[in-house]
Parts: sequence; structure tokens; C-alpha cells
Amino acid sequence: MTTQQLVAEIQRKKSFLCIGLDVDLDKIPPHLLDTEDPIFEFNKAIIDATHDLAVAYKPNSAFYEAYGVKGWIALEKTIDYLNKNYPEQFTIADAKRGDIGNTSTRYAKAFLEDMNFDSITVAPYMGKDSVEPFLAFQGKHTIVLALTSNEGAFDFQTKEVEGKELYKQVLETSKNWKNSENLMYVVGATKADFFAEVRSIVPDSFLLVPGVGAQGGSLADVCRYGMNDQVGLLVNSARGIIYASRKEDFAEQARAEALKLQQEMASYLG
Amino acid sequence: MTTQQLVAEIQRKKSFLCIGLDVDLDKIPPHLLDTEDPIFEFNKAIIDATHDLAVAYKPNSAFYEAYGVKGWIALEKTIDYLNKNYPEQFTIADAKRGDIGNTSTRYAKAFLEDMNFDSITVAPYMGKDSVEPFLAFQGKHTIVLALTSNEGAFDFQTKEVEGKELYKQVLETSKNWKNSENLMYVVGATKADFFAEVRSIVPDSFLLVPGVGAQGGSLADVCRYGMNDQVGLLVNSARGIIYASRKEDFAEQARAEALKLQQEMASYLG
Repeated sequence: MTTQQLVAEIQRKKSFLCIGLDVDLDKIPPHLLDTEDPIFEFNKAIIDATHDLAVAYKPNSAFYEAYGVKGWIALEKTIDYLNKNYPEQFTIADAKRGDIGNTSTRYAKAFLEDMNFDSITVAPYMGKDSVEPFLAFQGKHTIVLALTSNEGAFDFQTKEVEGKELYKQVLETSKNWKNSENLMYVVGATKADFFAEVRSIVPDSFLLVPGVGAQGGSLADVCRYGMNDQVGLLVNSARGIIYASRKEDFAEQARAEALKLQQEMASYLG
Repeated sequence: MTTQQLVAEIQRKKSFLCIGLDVDLDKIPPHLLDTEDPIFEFNKAIIDATHDLAVAYKPNSAFYEAYGVKGWIALEKTIDYLNKNYPEQFTIADAKRGDIGNTSTRYAKAFLEDMNFDSITVAPYMGKDSVEPFLAFQGKHTIVLALTSNEGAFDFQTKEVEGKELYKQVLETSKNWKNSENLMYVVGATKADFFAEVRSIVPDSFLLVPGVGAQGGSLADVCRYGMNDQVGLLVNSARGIIYASRKEDFAEQARAEALKLQQEMASYLG
């Protein structure tokens, strides 16, 4: 999917909502546990109930790997289901990968080619030759961790590196990498004060924003400081939507929570 | 496995060799492609032929994920085979994971508990609360990326952060994390000049050292500057050993290459 297509979807739906598919078998409705593939059945129901309110879905690979081969199968079924039934959705493999060049290419192939996600999250610690193999995939997007939503972001990301915080060095340096037009960045909603700084370096890039809801970030603040003239934001919510209910009505309740966020987003889109 | 047990194995075998199981179906002997699980058959043959010369095996998860569900099954079979047949081996999941706390716990559970690896490699960019969930697993080891073997290591890792290079900040900061006695670090052999600096900060920690062989690092230099009185090194070699031959004799040739490294290592152990 191109960035232009994503922007068009955002404008059509008046939504920049990304739904995090972080499936925990201890939290899904118990009646689903009797099905052959509870993880996939849960995802399918959530997607069917929310697809007109969201523009992106983001499974976090950790939640699937935790269930071994069964989890990996559920992940593959989920992305296949999205690609076949809702090709207008922007899909994000939240995998936070990164390795030396030939190894990063393997990860890129797995997620961007074989599973056919539109994008993948990548950690920047290993530098240029660990990220460029992802950027080489045409029509795909590489979402680099810049300023994450957790407390540990202050351990290194906000430390001054040659007169500038590390996350700013990551933003600036990455602009010079090959195929940098395929870059997006993770910037946590819990760090709303930093959005103006981020925008001064990457005014045009899309930002994937976790941390609204359960982690305490404010959607209003994110929009005030982070939105650009192409919107430029994908705001993720996971727990607040997908675990709205553990009863038979879980998909309806998930839709109700997604609708609240979509309506708030519509108000900021004006 | 405890660090003491690992040191005892190193002294018994006169080896601190780690063999990287980075299996590429385009590079393994063609006759194996007719078997039901070529990746596992290849690993099994390599392990059987080299186990008395090596103290550790390190599958890189990217090479398995690249083959989807089949790859994941081969990874599980490989670690099961090691745990059942060679429990004296130190096993490393080279996965370079890292995420917010509850998500890192999922990765830790997948690799350290369910698959029962002795250790996992972790990226430090997200800080303390992304690494501590791994450190919480008792009897397991978390190997944090400090100074990697690739060129991109110079993009951020060697940049000065508040008067000290980032990799040194990572080493120093991580020493204060909970259960830090379970930490090891990745330091690339291609950066041998830096080993003395690393040792001044973490004199007692084990270092996992990639980059000898194909990537050009010198074993002699690594030992000169990196060895401590408990040896404190695991030196990885992958391609140079596992792809020594593509013929029927591949396992024998792998053994011959492993033997060369083991003999060189024995000479440095004195």
C-alpha cells in the first residue's frame, strides 16, 4: 500500500485508528477456547466488527510466538484474512526486528514478502545496514522505533548524543538511508511533549503512536502536536478495544470502543 | 545452565566455540532437500559432528522465520534435540527481541520457558523495562547487544552520549538492572580494539562474540583483549563451519573447520 492510499483511507473513514491484535488466551472470551484456533477466531471477530472504523491492524509478534507453532499459524491466518477480505487495511507486523544485513533480509522476507504485511517495526540500535534491508522492499514501509511509550525510553533514547537526544539522531540519520521514503517512526503517545520536536525533524513522515488508553497517553495532545497536513498519524489502541468484554458480545463491545476513538479522531480531522 | 557450569565445560573441552545454526536452504547440501525436514536434518548432522568441540549452539531466529511455520517447527525440533541429547551445551536463541514490559515477558516465555533455551539475545534501545522481563527468568541468561559486528554499529553505538559512547552507557546502565547477574553482552570480533574498554566496565561478564571468520574478526585479538580469568568469551562461527562443504561429507568438513578453531582456542587457554 502506498502512503497516498493510506491517506485516502484515513480521509474516507475519518479515522487514523490502528487496532493492536495482541491476543492473550487468558483474556479472550472463554467460549472461544473450544474452537480449533481461538486466536484466529478472536481476531476474525474483532476485525469483522471494526474494519470500517479502523485503517490499520497491528498484531504484535510476541503474543503469537508465545504460543509456538500454533501461534505462528494463527498469525499467518490473521494476515491472510486481512489481505483477502480487507485489502484496504494497512497491516503492521509489530516485530521490532533488526540484525546484520543478510539476516535482516530474512526477517523482511518473512514479514513483508511471504506473509505480505504492508509494514514492520524495526529497532535502530544496529544502524543503517540493519534497517536498509527492510527499506529495500518496494511498496512496503519500515517503521523505526524512535521514542517509545515505555518508561525505559528515558534510559537511552532521550540521552544527549553529540548535543542532540538519541531519538533525534535516529530520526535525522535515518533520513539519509537508502529508500528512506519508505520510513515511518514509532513515537509513543505518553511522550506528547516531544511531538513538536519530532515534527521539526520529520514533518512529512507517518508516525505510529502506541500508548493511548491503557498506557495513559492523550489523543488530543498527540493530534495537537503530531498531526500534519496529510494527517501523518496512526494511533494504536489494543487492550482498550479488544478486551472491552469477555462475554459473547465481545466483538460488539470492541466496536463500541473503536467507535468512540473514531469519533474523537473525526473531530480532530475537522 | 549456570555460568559456573558453562565455565567448567569450556575448561573440559578446551573450547569456547559457539556454532551459529543459520540455516539457508540454498546453501545446504542438495541431497538433504529430499528429506522431510531438511533444516532439522542439517542441524542434527552438524550438531552430532561437532558437539565435543563446541560449548554452545546459536540458531538465529531470522533464518527459521523466513520459512514460516515449517521453519518454526525446525527451530523447536533443533532446541529439543539439543536439550535431550546434549544438555551440557549452552543454547542461545539469537532473536534480538525487545518490547514494552508485558510484551517482552511473552518473548521470554516463548524462548526461555517453552523452547527452553538457556539464553536469548536482546536489543537495548527500549531500556530497562524492556530487558528486565528477560532477566527475571531464573537460571537463564539475557545477552544484550552492546557493540555489534556490523558497519552500522558506528551509526549510534559508538556515538558519545553524555561524554561516553552509547555502548558503554548500555554496559554501565544495565549493571544496575534487577537480576543483572544474568546478563551477558554481544561484542563483535570486528571491533577488537574496543575489547579493553568493554572489559574495564564489565570485567566479569560473558561476552558473545560474532564476526570471527566470514566477517573478518581476529580470534587472537579477541582473546588478547577480551579474555578474563573465567575465560568470559563465547566466540561464534556460523558460515565458516556449517557451509564448509555442500557434498555428502558436509558434517565431516564442518567438524574439520570446528576442530581448527577449537585447537586455536585451546592454545589461547594455555
